[in-house]
Amino acid sequence: MQQQRQLEIERRLRDIVGERVFVDVAQRVSYGYDGSFGQYLPDFVTQPLATSEVQQIVKLANVYDLPIYPRGAGTNLSGGSLPVNGGIVLDFSQWNDEVTIYPDDLIIKTRPGVKTADIHALAEQHQLMYPPDPSSSSVCTIGGNLAENAGGPHGVKYGVTKDYVIGLEVVTAQGDIIRTGGNTIKNVTGYDLTKLLIGAEGTLGIITEATLRLIPKPPATQTALIVFEDLGSAGRSISQILTSGVRPSKMEILDHHAINKVVDYAGIDLPRDAAALLLVEVDGDEAILRKELETIKAALAKMGVTQVKIAGSKAEEAELWQVRKAVSPAVVERGFTKISEDATVPLSKIPHMFEKVDEIKQKYDLNLVVFGHAGDGNLHPTISANMRDPEAVKNVERAVEEIFNYAIELGGTLSGEHGIGTMKKPFMTREFDPASLAFQKAIKDALDPDHRLNPGKIFPATGETRLVLSHDD
Amino acid sequence: MQQQRQLEIERRLRDIVGERVFVDVAQRVSYGYDGSFGQYLPDFVTQPLATSEVQQIVKLANVYDLPIYPRGAGTNLSGGSLPVNGGIVLDFSQWNDEVTIYPDDLIIKTRPGVKTADIHALAEQHQLMYPPDPSSSSVCTIGGNLAENAGGPHGVKYGVTKDYVIGLEVVTAQGDIIRTGGNTIKNVTGYDLTKLLIGAEGTLGIITEATLRLIPKPPATQTALIVFEDLGSAGRSISQILTSGVRPSKMEILDHHAINKVVDYAGIDLPRDAAALLLVEVDGDEAILRKELETIKAALAKMGVTQVKIAGSKAEEAELWQVRKAVSPAVVERGFTKISEDATVPLSKIPHMFEKVDEIKQKYDLNLVVFGHAGDGNLHPTISANMRDPEAVKNVERAVEEIFNYAIELGGTLSGEHGIGTMKKPFMTREFDPASLAFQKAIKDALDPDHRLNPGKIFPATGETRLVLSHDD
Repeated sequence: MQQQRQLEIERRLRDIVGERVFVDVAQRVSYGYDGSFGQYLPDFVTQPLATSEVQQIVKLANVYDLPIYPRGAGTNLSGGSLPVNGGIVLDFSQWNDEVTIYPDDLIIKTRPGVKTADIHALAEQHQLMYPPDPSSSSVCTIGGNLAENAGGPHGVKYGVTKDYVIGLEVVTAQGDIIRTGGNTIKNVTGYDLTKLLIGAEGTLGIITEATLRLIPKPPATQTALIVFEDLGSAGRSISQILTSGVRPSKMEILDHHAINKVVDYAGIDLPRDAAALLLVEVDGDEAILRKELETIKAALAKMGVTQVKIAGSKAEEAELWQVRKAVSPAVVERGFTKISEDATVPLSKIPHMFEKVDEIKQKYDLNLVVFGHAGDGNLHPTISANMRDPEAVKNVERAVEEIFNYAIELGGTLSGEHGIGTMKKPFMTREFDPASLAFQKAIKDALDPDHRLNPGKIFPATGETRLVLSHDD
Repeated sequence: MQQQRQLEIERRLRDIVGERVFVDVAQRVSYGYDGSFGQYLPDFVTQPLATSEVQQIVKLANVYDLPIYPRGAGTNLSGGSLPVNGGIVLDFSQWNDEVTIYPDDLIIKTRPGVKTADIHALAEQHQLMYPPDPSSSSVCTIGGNLAENAGGPHGVKYGVTKDYVIGLEVVTAQGDIIRTGGNTIKNVTGYDLTKLLIGAEGTLGIITEATLRLIPKPPATQTALIVFEDLGSAGRSISQILTSGVRPSKMEILDHHAINKVVDYAGIDLPRDAAALLLVEVDGDEAILRKELETIKAALAKMGVTQVKIAGSKAEEAELWQVRKAVSPAVVERGFTKISEDATVPLSKIPHMFEKVDEIKQKYDLNLVVFGHAGDGNLHPTISANMRDPEAVKNVERAVEEIFNYAIELGGTLSGEHGIGTMKKPFMTREFDPASLAFQKAIKDALDPDHRLNPGKIFPATGETRLVLSHDD
């Protein structure tokens, strides 16, 4: 009976998308995980290549009461694409070549499977820029960026994915095709469904097309590396820089432990006793960039700076950014698992957060470094742990919980750019009071009453208040 | 019976806000209009000065089944604050002094009645900037800006109100107090209710506090006035400028008729035969601004430019901006009414829109000029008409309808920054198909099932598809 139902669904899926249906366990298993934790098995995997196909699959899912899990490249870190209740995975990664630029309108129209890197390249061919730059850009899809409202180092000056999406085509939970926003940067016609859907993690509708706005590409960039003798100074320097009259295009921070990992891993020459370092990029007209970095240097005259390196060439600039790029691989240890968090705090609270995380590191004897996007308070405490050791797992769970609690206590938030997914939903009730969470749920219930779209994400189950990391990864 | 009910409601309102309740017709009548059309009479006017007062008033409105109309300074142009169904007006204009800046966090927390100009000034005291700059800034309230998602000339580089709001306190239709967003620029924790509520025109919740993010104030500005011999060249120049590597902070356009109005009204020396002019401001380091304007000038070498004036001093820059500032008063005629539209189109379609509006002007023999925010396609066709002449009213109605239809045909939108309110709701079904509009309505119905909050706005009544301008103004 059950098997007959499965065969019937498979046949009807094939009527919609032909050969692009996978039912073998060997095929399905590779769609069961992402960049976070846990392994789940979807019942069906399909690769739609048209809005009408998505629409028909959703209608089919309604007939058979199956959950739907949209998926890009699966790079996300919060479990947004995990098929936790089985059902149908919509793998958009093959719908990757429908992307058109309209240079005179400064917009791009794209389907969800297009790689973010391809959008960057297309814009740059026309002296334009699509600023959002998550570190997974070279492999991730724009659809995943849209679902999670991806960020990146450009956030401090240019904002995040949401700030560049002006229109969407969406398939609703009922299988209707709707349009939100349009082709203009300014638009106040009706409710802003575009910005509601970006970052909703695929729980309110399935994005099948997006209209992205572009901006003029700044002609040049220049970078400074600034080393600090104590964390407090590094923290206070962030506001100092942002009120100096110069507007950095990137401002990244590495703590003492991250610096030492980078020295060990990449052999880059950095002072091992430094408390922290900032990498500050400015962009714009070549003629002014060096002066802007000097202005920043002057603004930090009394801020415990021990060293300032200003890149003298493009090659030197690339070298400085190697420091930041090396952090993530430097943290990886053979056989260990990397847990990347992104608790985010108000700018003035960055030093407090660094100190607390250091305390937590000591308390649980963790291999933990902190780096992140200093200009917007978006920190990435990153732990490397042996997740086959139950005691280590417990320690990670406790540490992550304490980090979140403190971020919220400081007026911060659970997630700056990674999303809630499965990983952070147990903590939602710590950030939101019941009425505020109920307001969000009312929207979900109104638009997707059967909870068909990406169920098991964002909202905690009743009584779910603790992080439990699966051992299956 | 009816009178007894009124007295009972008045008494209960006085229990909440004391003397800040108005019931005399003479007092209520001044709350019945705004910057658009029509005159309505609310049953009660109150001036809340605390979130708990707003909460209690909403709960009272639920008991007596009364609509609620939040109101700032009443400057809006689309009818957003009109109490079309009577009920209770919440006049926030007196809740105007609770505003605090946190310079180290680059944020401001404000109550709805604070003037936008006060927020600008407070930010500037700390070398910071709150960029949204609607032309009513000196008199309007931030609450109105939040409800309507106000824009302004800064939009081309800095975006609109929504781009600077990171958290809200809101009283729901049921009288619950909720919080959305927080204190951080990056935030992907749960649904983005902040951006849903900004621009929702008070129909989904009543904003009682907002957290605004600030950016570093650019140290200097510089402006160029560029005159064109034909409209097509002016239009094409917009994309040309935006792909020149320079990013203007303002880019305003005036058509031939607007230019001549300005010459007549303000006696400013401009060529009367010009087809259009652009005012382009760049901001940043003083040292580079002149060079940036020269870059723009060079980029327009073959674009039908007849004159370029670059301001040589702050005084000359202020003079150039007088051209733009004079347009609005120049259009006003004694005894006539000004109808300001804000149809918005993709950048490449600006010349088409100008040509069409000129056709419509001729067809209906209208006193009509076009100006607006060229850098984001946000045009303000502005008509001056004798609204006591029924034939003139009919012509205005027809002209406005044709302007909207063509904007939508060009892939544009009904409103770039003024909002939908009462004025544009008849046209919503032209921009949105039934499923797209139903998606919006589902959110309204879920959050405010009794349609208590600002009813009669955004969504057209059944069969309402034409603009009917009231003769009561």
